[in-house]
Amino acid sequence: MSLRYIGQKLAQQIDDELMSASGAFSIDQLMELAGLSCAQALAKSFPAHTHRRVLVCCGPGNQGGDGLVAARHLHHFAYAPTIYYPKPGGKELYHRLLRQAQNLGIPVVDTDAFAGALRDADVVLDAIFGFSFHPPVRAPFDTVLSALAQSAAPIISVDIPSGWGVEAGRQPLTNSDGEEVATIDPAVLVSLTAPKEGVRTYAGKHWLGGRFVPDNLAKKHELNLPAYPGVDQVVELPSAGKL
Amino acid sequence: MSLRYIGQKLAQQIDDELMSASGAFSIDQLMELAGLSCAQALAKSFPAHTHRRVLVCCGPGNQGGDGLVAARHLHHFAYAPTIYYPKPGGKELYHRLLRQAQNLGIPVVDTDAFAGALRDADVVLDAIFGFSFHPPVRAPFDTVLSALAQSAAPIISVDIPSGWGVEAGRQPLTNSDGEEVATIDPAVLVSLTAPKEGVRTYAGKHWLGGRFVPDNLAKKHELNLPAYPGVDQVVELPSAGKL
Repeated sequence: MSLRYIGQKLAQQIDDELMSASGAFSIDQLMELAGLSCAQALAKSFPAHTHRRVLVCCGPGNQGGDGLVAARHLHHFAYAPTIYYPKPGGKELYHRLLRQAQNLGIPVVDTDAFAGALRDADVVLDAIFGFSFHPPVRAPFDTVLSALAQSAAPIISVDIPSGWGVEAGRQPLTNSDGEEVATIDPAVLVSLTAPKEGVRTYAGKHWLGGRFVPDNLAKKHELNLPAYPGVDQVVELPSAGKL
Repeated sequence: MSLRYIGQKLAQQIDDELMSASGAFSIDQLMELAGLSCAQALAKSFPAHTHRRVLVCCGPGNQGGDGLVAARHLHHFAYAPTIYYPKPGGKELYHRLLRQAQNLGIPVVDTDAFAGALRDADVVLDAIFGFSFHPPVRAPFDTVLSALAQSAAPIISVDIPSGWGVEAGRQPLTNSDGEEVATIDPAVLVSLTAPKEGVRTYAGKHWLGGRFVPDNLAKKHELNLPAYPGVDQVVELPSAGKL
């Protein structure tokens, strides 16, 4: 039974089921575990002694929240994260997650300071767009993605590389004005819950995180998740490049 | 600078500060990380292939909540936990945590079935009383503690061995009728946030968990916390028996 790559609709359905009355999870819990998974995947891919300065790019939705949680754990893992969060989402949870990070002294840079922060970064955590993304790319993320695509720092993307189609995968992109936006090619990917259809041919280092999916939910949707090792919150998936 | 052992009042104050408007943590987040710490400490002390059957004993307060979270993670870590939760606390969060565990098929036993569950257990996770405990011990936990004290299965206690004084440490105990209750001697202890005064002379294997204390809070209260290794949620403390 091989691992299932899921589409946008099923990804949303699984999230809904986890947080339904019967699933009983709160978003605080799931986001904490998802963000911890991302931080662990980064730490297992880029050691702190070589990649201490992490630029955590957060989008306005839940994936940005995962990024804020990851930044906090990365600080505790002895990294020096910096947060770029130009369009804070409205949920009260996001405000609290940002505050928690700021309480650790994690700097938050604005769009004017983004280019400098990117130059200084040893690695970028891309938590901009998640499985709800639909093109075109809205400002300021159009220029951000183009800058990331040209950066020397390796990128680790959460769930789906920002700008890729959740189902279509790597694709040409435009912004709201119809101008071309560069496509990023992350060195590392951390899929959450189950990998998405759009990364089926992704050939970089690939982690799965979100070690909280109940067995009956995994079975119902035939996810065929691999076994996680030990107490880790991530498990490495075979890369499509090695299949 | 040596590790600080904290009293009941400061333990409560640190919790309050973490969950204050400025600390910005929700109890869902902190309990998730605390319970994960407990599950990791158990896994690092008692491997699943020798200690698969874990009896998780949960009290009515927040420590019982930590136990419910730990039981869920232990299931994901390939253990076979059973929950004993005779006096469910009123918080809605506890109900959800119990439901999450039940969704994994984790059995919940009542007081009639407790003795049998204890006989079948390879290890006991004691999440009965936390740092808010004041004697005497109320039923049914009086008979439970006496049974645990005589059990062959090793005990891993959360924060403070149940029945010990948070500050006074190992002490003679009575129940509400003035009858003697046996004192437990856990093989392993997992302190949360910072160790409590009552375990200063504890000589068993000792873990610290709760890798979320902000540096400024640790500094303000002179906790002098040790560095956690890698991406672990627990760090082993020197045992008083080895000092």
